[in-house]
Amino acid sequence: MTEHPPILHQRNLEDTLKQIIYLLNKQQLVSHLVKKQDSPRQELIQTLVAKQQLAELRQKLESLHPADIAYVLEQLPLPQRIMVWDLIDVKRYGAVLLEVSDAVRASLIDDLEHKELIHAVEHLESDEIADLMPDLPSDMVIAVMKSLDQSDREQVQSVMTFPEGSVGALMEFDVVMVREDISIDVVLRYLRRRGEIPNDLDQLFVVDREGLLKGGLKLNKLLISSPDSLVSELMNPDVVFFYTHDDAGEATGAFERYDLISAPVLNSHNQVVGRIGIDLVMDFVEERAKKERLGQVGLTEEEDLFAPVWHSARNRWLWLGVNLMTAFFASRVISVFEDAIVQLVALATLMPIVASVGGNTGNQTVALVIRGLALKQINRSNVRYLFAKELSISLLNGTLWGSVMGLFTFVLYQDMTLSLVMTSAMILNLIIAALTGTLVPLTLHRLNRDPAIGSSVMLTFMTDSMGFFIFLGLAVVVLL
Amino acid sequence: MTEHPPILHQRNLEDTLKQIIYLLNKQQLVSHLVKKQDSPRQELIQTLVAKQQLAELRQKLESLHPADIAYVLEQLPLPQRIMVWDLIDVKRYGAVLLEVSDAVRASLIDDLEHKELIHAVEHLESDEIADLMPDLPSDMVIAVMKSLDQSDREQVQSVMTFPEGSVGALMEFDVVMVREDISIDVVLRYLRRRGEIPNDLDQLFVVDREGLLKGGLKLNKLLISSPDSLVSELMNPDVVFFYTHDDAGEATGAFERYDLISAPVLNSHNQVVGRIGIDLVMDFVEERAKKERLGQVGLTEEEDLFAPVWHSARNRWLWLGVNLMTAFFASRVISVFEDAIVQLVALATLMPIVASVGGNTGNQTVALVIRGLALKQINRSNVRYLFAKELSISLLNGTLWGSVMGLFTFVLYQDMTLSLVMTSAMILNLIIAALTGTLVPLTLHRLNRDPAIGSSVMLTFMTDSMGFFIFLGLAVVVLL
Repeated sequence: MTEHPPILHQRNLEDTLKQIIYLLNKQQLVSHLVKKQDSPRQELIQTLVAKQQLAELRQKLESLHPADIAYVLEQLPLPQRIMVWDLIDVKRYGAVLLEVSDAVRASLIDDLEHKELIHAVEHLESDEIADLMPDLPSDMVIAVMKSLDQSDREQVQSVMTFPEGSVGALMEFDVVMVREDISIDVVLRYLRRRGEIPNDLDQLFVVDREGLLKGGLKLNKLLISSPDSLVSELMNPDVVFFYTHDDAGEATGAFERYDLISAPVLNSHNQVVGRIGIDLVMDFVEERAKKERLGQVGLTEEEDLFAPVWHSARNRWLWLGVNLMTAFFASRVISVFEDAIVQLVALATLMPIVASVGGNTGNQTVALVIRGLALKQINRSNVRYLFAKELSISLLNGTLWGSVMGLFTFVLYQDMTLSLVMTSAMILNLIIAALTGTLVPLTLHRLNRDPAIGSSVMLTFMTDSMGFFIFLGLAVVVLL
Repeated sequence: MTEHPPILHQRNLEDTLKQIIYLLNKQQLVSHLVKKQDSPRQELIQTLVAKQQLAELRQKLESLHPADIAYVLEQLPLPQRIMVWDLIDVKRYGAVLLEVSDAVRASLIDDLEHKELIHAVEHLESDEIADLMPDLPSDMVIAVMKSLDQSDREQVQSVMTFPEGSVGALMEFDVVMVREDISIDVVLRYLRRRGEIPNDLDQLFVVDREGLLKGGLKLNKLLISSPDSLVSELMNPDVVFFYTHDDAGEATGAFERYDLISAPVLNSHNQVVGRIGIDLVMDFVEERAKKERLGQVGLTEEEDLFAPVWHSARNRWLWLGVNLMTAFFASRVISVFEDAIVQLVALATLMPIVASVGGNTGNQTVALVIRGLALKQINRSNVRYLFAKELSISLLNGTLWGSVMGLFTFVLYQDMTLSLVMTSAMILNLIIAALTGTLVPLTLHRLNRDPAIGSSVMLTFMTDSMGFFIFLGLAVVVLL
């Protein structure tokens, strides 16, 4: 682990970005002038100025934490981004690549040569290298693997074999292990000899001769206890641990619930093979929230703010296509009732209300069910209760607000039957919204798919099509 | 800080819940039988059995971590929840109240008497008491305040004066401070005498005589360095700190970016007054994600899974009301064109497609802009670029998919002009979606309001009303 330059406050970070953009613009202006100059003397001066600017920019970048460089890179359009990237010390490429978003990472890796990448990767831990691997072109993966020594290569391979979203795929390898029958004094001497303890390590792992986990020994305790005590007296035998095959989301839950800082990771033989720390958990939480947020609107890929328009447009096609299809289907439902609409045009005016209110209330149910599933609050024992509750709410709200809409309808069209059709259609569509809003996320969850992605589309499809069908159908039966 | 019982894996947590529900059901069955029994001897036996069951249940609960008790309480309908709550040791009430969700907390506090609450609060830190205060009825707040000693009361009051969402409102008071001119040996002796170091503390804060922050000294470094070194030699002078008035969201960003575990909090005189730790940051992130998720669908209040139907129904009214109004407005837009619809009923069939596709693509823009704002990726220097990009994408996608829809329209209705109206309306509505989808979240953000809440409603309002207006208006101008 390398020492990093000082860290900036957010305020200063924005100022830094402004400075860099200012330096970049000056630099571009100067290079522009250099090209246009005719006299060799003037050209020389301009070139000197340009070099000085570059040095200033390079120095500025050197003073930044990799996370802050990542922030700057993400804010810059592609040509300027590459300009800044080329000014960064190759040694720090790896650390910066780990910090940038996936979309920006791709744009930077495109600019890298094999040699540079191998040089960059030299300074990373094996779990960090494994993180980068999926984003590298396959020839680069082979080149990087060749450049690693035996043990690193094995570690990288082992991380890469764990499925995405498992604890194994997240874990780090740098653990500190001690035996339970030694004294604190021996532990302290061992640590001094070792010389460095990872930054986010809050406990040593106590293991036996076979590497089986016996407990955890917090650094806090180590500091305040007498040197003669034994590890076994001070350790916590009930330390929370995870298996490599555990679900990372579940581990995250445990970190939140029990305020953990780190936890040992065991293989299926109960041997300690690694460690999962709160920083990785935070990254995972952030990543999951992002996926969920963008997944809700059908964006499968994160968008680089400065990606080409064509690329961004295609990223949105899936969603556009799905929505065109559902809208088209709803439109075909309406077309069945064209005769009725010609006879009573108010039907065309009122029908979107039924569909729209159904969709919106259904999305409330979807949001609550997804949240309940994420917090493991919904299980076999209360799912029936949940159904009954959502149905009652929709019946209550449908009756109440359906009547309000019925009244409006009567005021507008002075047609009592039409107003009754409106009220009934709203009640029925809210019931459908409650049913779909509960069933769809529960089903997706049972099928091991993320309910946050797709539930909303399915719901809107149902409430639109059924909203039109119920309202127009009722009108045909009762009115015409 | 009290020692907690061992922690459970999620798997075991669900088993524990099942056991408790089983014990509860048995208990209810037995008490039911007791009431029905006639013979005094049988009654006696049943009462004894009932008592045994209760003892078993109490023992089970005692073995659980407060976070796990909170989980159990949240899974139970109100009567059973209160039954379990009454079995919990009063000493642990405070810890459990801190862990449950707001909605469930209210139901538990309702069941508490003043004395019990004061007893519960005795075991909490002052920042934890301040957390509970907003949920207590005002007479209880006064009673709790009276029960505290001078310094605790002042701390609680100081936390409560900081606005919600500030670092001050989140911070803890238990910090360990040392001077820079002392040796590590002295620090270690001081820590041993002090006897306890908070669980999530990873660094001591180095201050001068006036309490001004000089740096941070990591426990890691303390452990591996020679006892003669001075604090000033080992400390990190560039420690990340926050002011009490800093925005908690910004602090969260810094924790994520720099992988912090804890950071000192300073008052406006640069004196260390507290500490903010990763566990509080995690809770804040979780809380914010929840608010955002539920705020998107207009739920201002978290819903207890077992809250009464009437209560839940009212929680959803605001959103229902807003959506009824926007749907009603859109319906009034259509009504202007009733004559046109009677002349060409295909208009009624096709109009929802224009509105719906506009709303859905606009929501993609909204999600991306909100994400960009949250990551501070959007600023004055690139907002114009963002606009241009979203407009280009909508123009591109509008032309492409509008043409597809135009083709469908032609196949269905064999009307070239209608099909051109369809294509043009889709292009125009996608442009409106891009404009609204960018402008609305940016404006809400500039007004210091959460763009995640409300953007979507405003967007749908625009794309629905304008979708109908553009499509029907164009049709009237061109076709009729």
